[in-house]
Amino acid sequence: MTESDPASALHEMKGIDPPPSVNPHLRLAARREPSVSELMFRLAQGDHQAVSRSITLIESSSPRHQAQAAELVELCQALGRTAKRVGITGVPGVGKSTLIEAWGTRCADRGERLAVLAVDPSSQATHGSILGDKSRMGKLANHPGAFIRPSATRGALGGVAHATREAALVCEAAGFDWIWIETVGVGQSELTVSQMVDTFLLLALPGAGDELQGIKRGVMELADVVAVTKADGSAEIAAQVAKQQIENALHLFSNEGRSRPVRALLTSARAELGLEELDAEIRAFLDEQLQNGGFAERRRNQAVAWLEDGLQRRAWQRVSEADGFAERKEHAAAKVRAGEWTPRRALDHVLPL
Amino acid sequence: MTESDPASALHEMKGIDPPPSVNPHLRLAARREPSVSELMFRLAQGDHQAVSRSITLIESSSPRHQAQAAELVELCQALGRTAKRVGITGVPGVGKSTLIEAWGTRCADRGERLAVLAVDPSSQATHGSILGDKSRMGKLANHPGAFIRPSATRGALGGVAHATREAALVCEAAGFDWIWIETVGVGQSELTVSQMVDTFLLLALPGAGDELQGIKRGVMELADVVAVTKADGSAEIAAQVAKQQIENALHLFSNEGRSRPVRALLTSARAELGLEELDAEIRAFLDEQLQNGGFAERRRNQAVAWLEDGLQRRAWQRVSEADGFAERKEHAAAKVRAGEWTPRRALDHVLPL
Repeated sequence: MTESDPASALHEMKGIDPPPSVNPHLRLAARREPSVSELMFRLAQGDHQAVSRSITLIESSSPRHQAQAAELVELCQALGRTAKRVGITGVPGVGKSTLIEAWGTRCADRGERLAVLAVDPSSQATHGSILGDKSRMGKLANHPGAFIRPSATRGALGGVAHATREAALVCEAAGFDWIWIETVGVGQSELTVSQMVDTFLLLALPGAGDELQGIKRGVMELADVVAVTKADGSAEIAAQVAKQQIENALHLFSNEGRSRPVRALLTSARAELGLEELDAEIRAFLDEQLQNGGFAERRRNQAVAWLEDGLQRRAWQRVSEADGFAERKEHAAAKVRAGEWTPRRALDHVLPL
Repeated sequence: MTESDPASALHEMKGIDPPPSVNPHLRLAARREPSVSELMFRLAQGDHQAVSRSITLIESSSPRHQAQAAELVELCQALGRTAKRVGITGVPGVGKSTLIEAWGTRCADRGERLAVLAVDPSSQATHGSILGDKSRMGKLANHPGAFIRPSATRGALGGVAHATREAALVCEAAGFDWIWIETVGVGQSELTVSQMVDTFLLLALPGAGDELQGIKRGVMELADVVAVTKADGSAEIAAQVAKQQIENALHLFSNEGRSRPVRALLTSARAELGLEELDAEIRAFLDEQLQNGGFAERRRNQAVAWLEDGLQRRAWQRVSEADGFAERKEHAAAKVRAGEWTPRRALDHVLPL
């Protein structure tokens, strides 16, 4: 739990007392819809069930739920708690779940509270390729200090990202020490996740130097720390080679704007190797960021970038949902594809100035 | 020049004959504004002066010029000529101008016609850091087969990119064999240029493996060919090392969707080393693309992406230029930066649903 008393903190800030109808000693009723103030009260006490219900509210597309979610998120923000947010990515098969389970269990055993969220834009098609099955992290999922939430399966990346960002605010209000946001190494999701975390961890397979590594070039740029996974037994040499090649690649790129050079580490979740070093590197990175002001600056920039992005998405929504837009656009795109119209003519057809 | 007779081609397609007022044996009068049909007639004959005037028309912000430019670009597109478009990037000091001059002069000496354009979003601040001074390419600039045009210095990247894309259409209509589009290795300009060319060449300095290389990680992903420059004399060993490190880095990344692996080559414009190999590699890449249909597909995808991008930019323009938007946005961004509002609340303030 956290240092301050959440109920009195909430009271001071927002005048939120435990609602008279709430018996804080009882769990949330499964069928009854809790009020926003009840949810907030229970959230602030660190109740995992309330975290889960809050995220469901955020993910709901019902306008009534959306209004409640907006109110709840405002309250969470007002509470002013902060967790350390870590983004974790890597291609399918790199061992994200295994590493999260091993490293997360260590953190939880120390008494730290950990929430694991996921951004998986592919989950609609694949029915959840990550965190879809909590049983892959059985030990961590059953740990009282850990909360695991699979990715929302509805909507495009923008919507999932929006929900995940607000889920992170809910988890911060619930007093978690860590929020880890996992994503698969496909498409734009890494960039999206990197814009909502304080540090970004890239996992890489041993046996680098060929296309199997599958790291998108742009993703390397986002990494604050790289961990080569499965660096044990017969893969140890291959992992060493991968580490060296990744370090060479990292050196090749500009470190402009970084206070700390990006390091590549060897890890094995199975053999419990390198986890301590990884843990120390992530903490050292975050400590340094906290001390030099980079942490707060990154958060502020993320919030403003998020607003900018949201405005552009909403502007596009307004324009593109207007009557006849979709038909005009489809017609124009076909003309462009056939080489009959220039993009400029198509543009003037769809959205005349 | 091109195989077909441009005047009759134009006549068949668009009914454009040389306007009666035009004496094709005279140059364009410097002060008089030529009509669109006169410009088009002269363009189709490959007249460099007409190319220059056409690009000026495209870059003009006057609504009358914009209307003329739209008409002209439609005509250029209708002519249906295609040039090989090459994007060229690299950090300042990598030797872009020197390489373009050396390689371009070789192409022009073979009888090929070459247009060199530039996208330089920094030019507003730096008064043109690339191609601002044609004297850096004196030999090529004075070659009758070459046309060099510095970057438009007005407007944001989106506007410059838009103008450059249309300038490329004008150059294609003028029957150039090659269009090289140069850009500096900063910000988003490489991505923008990569979306308007058929192949993308990244130049790298010898002496890799440190931050001096300054290659943004995301840029490596865009490259179809990499050339290490200045690989002569005492820099030869450093260039070899850079080549090896770049090849390692290239191997590390996925080659998904590529029919041809990305190669790194050693070049020296000064010592005239590796230019033949670079020329052969670019031609081999383009030939392969032409044969396997990748060339046409890339162009179609670029045109549709360009339309999509243009629609989003115009939607944003419509919404963001509305009364009071800028003030509301500034106010909301300040609240978000101060941590007083969540981005969601700010969004609802600026653009209520």
